[in-house]
Amino acid sequence: MFKKILIANRGEIALRIIRTCKEMGIKTVAVYSTADKESLHVRFADEAVCIGPAPSKQSYLNIPAIIAAAEITNADAIHPGYGFLSENALFSKTCQEHNIKFIGATPEQIQKMGDKATAKATMKAAGVPTVPGSDGIIENLAEAKKIAKKIKYPIILKATAGGGGRGMRIVHKEEDLEKAWNDAKMEAGAAFGNDGLYMEKFIESPRHIEIQVFGDQYGNVCHLSERDCSIQRRNQKLIEETPSPLLDEKLREKMGQAAIKGAKAINYEGAGTIEFLLDKNGDFYFMEMNTRIQVEHPVTEAVTGWDLVKEQIKVAAGVPISGKNYYPLAYSMECRINAEDPGKDFRPCPGKITNLHIPGGAGVRVDTHIYSGYVIPPNYDSMIAKVIVTAQSREEVIVRMKRALQEFVIDGVKTTIPLLIRLMDDPNFQNGRDFTTQYMNNYDYSGL
Amino acid sequence: MFKKILIANRGEIALRIIRTCKEMGIKTVAVYSTADKESLHVRFADEAVCIGPAPSKQSYLNIPAIIAAAEITNADAIHPGYGFLSENALFSKTCQEHNIKFIGATPEQIQKMGDKATAKATMKAAGVPTVPGSDGIIENLAEAKKIAKKIKYPIILKATAGGGGRGMRIVHKEEDLEKAWNDAKMEAGAAFGNDGLYMEKFIESPRHIEIQVFGDQYGNVCHLSERDCSIQRRNQKLIEETPSPLLDEKLREKMGQAAIKGAKAINYEGAGTIEFLLDKNGDFYFMEMNTRIQVEHPVTEAVTGWDLVKEQIKVAAGVPISGKNYYPLAYSMECRINAEDPGKDFRPCPGKITNLHIPGGAGVRVDTHIYSGYVIPPNYDSMIAKVIVTAQSREEVIVRMKRALQEFVIDGVKTTIPLLIRLMDDPNFQNGRDFTTQYMNNYDYSGL
Repeated sequence: MFKKILIANRGEIALRIIRTCKEMGIKTVAVYSTADKESLHVRFADEAVCIGPAPSKQSYLNIPAIIAAAEITNADAIHPGYGFLSENALFSKTCQEHNIKFIGATPEQIQKMGDKATAKATMKAAGVPTVPGSDGIIENLAEAKKIAKKIKYPIILKATAGGGGRGMRIVHKEEDLEKAWNDAKMEAGAAFGNDGLYMEKFIESPRHIEIQVFGDQYGNVCHLSERDCSIQRRNQKLIEETPSPLLDEKLREKMGQAAIKGAKAINYEGAGTIEFLLDKNGDFYFMEMNTRIQVEHPVTEAVTGWDLVKEQIKVAAGVPISGKNYYPLAYSMECRINAEDPGKDFRPCPGKITNLHIPGGAGVRVDTHIYSGYVIPPNYDSMIAKVIVTAQSREEVIVRMKRALQEFVIDGVKTTIPLLIRLMDDPNFQNGRDFTTQYMNNYDYSGL
Repeated sequence: MFKKILIANRGEIALRIIRTCKEMGIKTVAVYSTADKESLHVRFADEAVCIGPAPSKQSYLNIPAIIAAAEITNADAIHPGYGFLSENALFSKTCQEHNIKFIGATPEQIQKMGDKATAKATMKAAGVPTVPGSDGIIENLAEAKKIAKKIKYPIILKATAGGGGRGMRIVHKEEDLEKAWNDAKMEAGAAFGNDGLYMEKFIESPRHIEIQVFGDQYGNVCHLSERDCSIQRRNQKLIEETPSPLLDEKLREKMGQAAIKGAKAINYEGAGTIEFLLDKNGDFYFMEMNTRIQVEHPVTEAVTGWDLVKEQIKVAAGVPISGKNYYPLAYSMECRINAEDPGKDFRPCPGKITNLHIPGGAGVRVDTHIYSGYVIPPNYDSMIAKVIVTAQSREEVIVRMKRALQEFVIDGVKTTIPLLIRLMDDPNFQNGRDFTTQYMNNYDYSGL
């Protein structure tokens, strides 16, 4: 087993990884930017190394600085968390070259799943259902027109290097295709330095259902059932839950087996998530694979009893998994709390937390790095806490989540808590059926 | 269902009851002494009524003041928590008379189980194993000698009105009996206004195993398995866990069925706990029944998925239970954090908490009423928090508990955290077998 793990991340996920390392008797090294020197992950790690100034490029994305920190402190493994370098093939490779175990996917796996067109082709070849569309990158507008005609409108154009909604355009009829094509190409080029576009049939009113998979170094792969992450705003997940109110045992197993097939096709090792779109007819389509721990992993932990970070570390150290699948034994939901002003188009609200009360009690877990007096720096993601609630039924989860959100006191900055409370009272959300990934597009945000 | 519940308690248990009420959509009334006006239970309740000055007799034990508060606020039920008036037959009766539902046992049940000799006789008659001893109160020293000879030394003298170790004497040989008799009688008379003594065979090196039972208004009774509370200091529980490392399925069921038999014998309604001593041979003996929610109830919640306070409220409102028993699906342990100085014979340490960090993460629940800036009043019990940890094995629970205790920062007052951390590292505790209720008597407290 590893003796010392460097955590190449910040915020709640850094703290969360430290907690598991402590339970495993593994020493930890925190890295931090100058903006984060008062952060809890720095305080709770056994050692801490400053790796540069506030901008991510100069610190949390600074591969040489992080590798140097690992070498100075004699860390034998690096856990990248999510975001930052967690799905960076070069970083995974650089770790390999420095004989430091990267607790995550191999450079090849990251590359294959990072390029959306390659990922889709790989999954299709493995027999995982994919959305009808172009086979990879489209050469030109004429070809795009031909394919769209074949798969039928509405269609969606996507950047092959994309993510976060950039370089994406939905097109409902042929006369709108040219403008969308040009816009998406320009946006993709500017955002990713790669203007390659591919096309898919646009799945209307889908649910976002993702399957947690786990592979070891010996070819064993299992699934830990699904997470329903359909409540999103501008492609950012707000609420995640498991089990999905839309899945029965049969569909769960069908999606689980498809995910296992996909993971096996790339000899996947460690924690991964295969995201699907589920349409109204119960058909599902591969969307993308995330080759890292997800923000929303705690809901899976809550209903299966697994510690996913512990399993990541064990698998990276060569411990085999049993290969059996895990199914939800309870209901769990996560709300992401962002320091944003829902009354002002979700403008980020960095600043000082002047007073804090974190909810507690039965079935409530809060993963957060904030404390009373903490100053949220303006440089990073605005997520400041995750509230994870578990109970014996979805109804109980919702009332418990509402109670926990109402109990959460964060003074000094605006947060998304009022929106989340409103959602807990929303009959369309409560019934579990009447919302899709588009639900928040036309939501009533007034008075928040 | 009740519309408004008054919580006749303070501290963490008041807050814990408020949380469940919120989840059930029931309004809450907090009562508080002048010493508690800045307490969280006052802040989180829908209404709050000051019921008197700091000394418990004038506030939390002041029946007329509490009944008046319930009437003023139109509360239709009272939850007494634990301690204070929770096992006070007069209070239960007074609630009845004022047409306010007491969420707890009836006056008759409280009386029967409150008098230790009556309780034992009742259980014996119901077929629950009891410790060999006198049939009720012993008339005089001569009779005591006769009984001791019959049941064989060592024996223990106990006050029939007793509790908390007062009026108790262990006697190993006949020549020590007279002094012990006189001392116990005097102590019992002074402490309880009742110097009645009874005798039992003294069970050497026992474990404290208690069974959680639940009854409804229709005669259904179930058990929720055991809690092992053997780690005690001066009869005060420090650590509680479930399942007990000493019980197998067969013994669990045997003890569970004995507890059900006992509860049925008094038509028990609501949450109750039947405490047993378990000896080295796997024989167990009724010790006492607590007719209220226990401090350590969260470990049972953690492994069964029940919300015990919710079930108490439902049962009090006339909802039936299914009658099926519940068995541990995981491992859970609770550590009580007291504001006491373990380096100075556990002297209470009231005062201001200047800095606070409450542990979090997977499998960690903290029930507490403290916050940064909170002043612990000197008037009440020194327990300031309960850390409840859950995992898939006892080994994982222990490492997680140690991690959580190490993460707990409470500046400004001394606490028992260092002792609890030491216990997590103690091989006798770790192996689950090599400790009894007497284990802490000769423990090494040095350096704490």
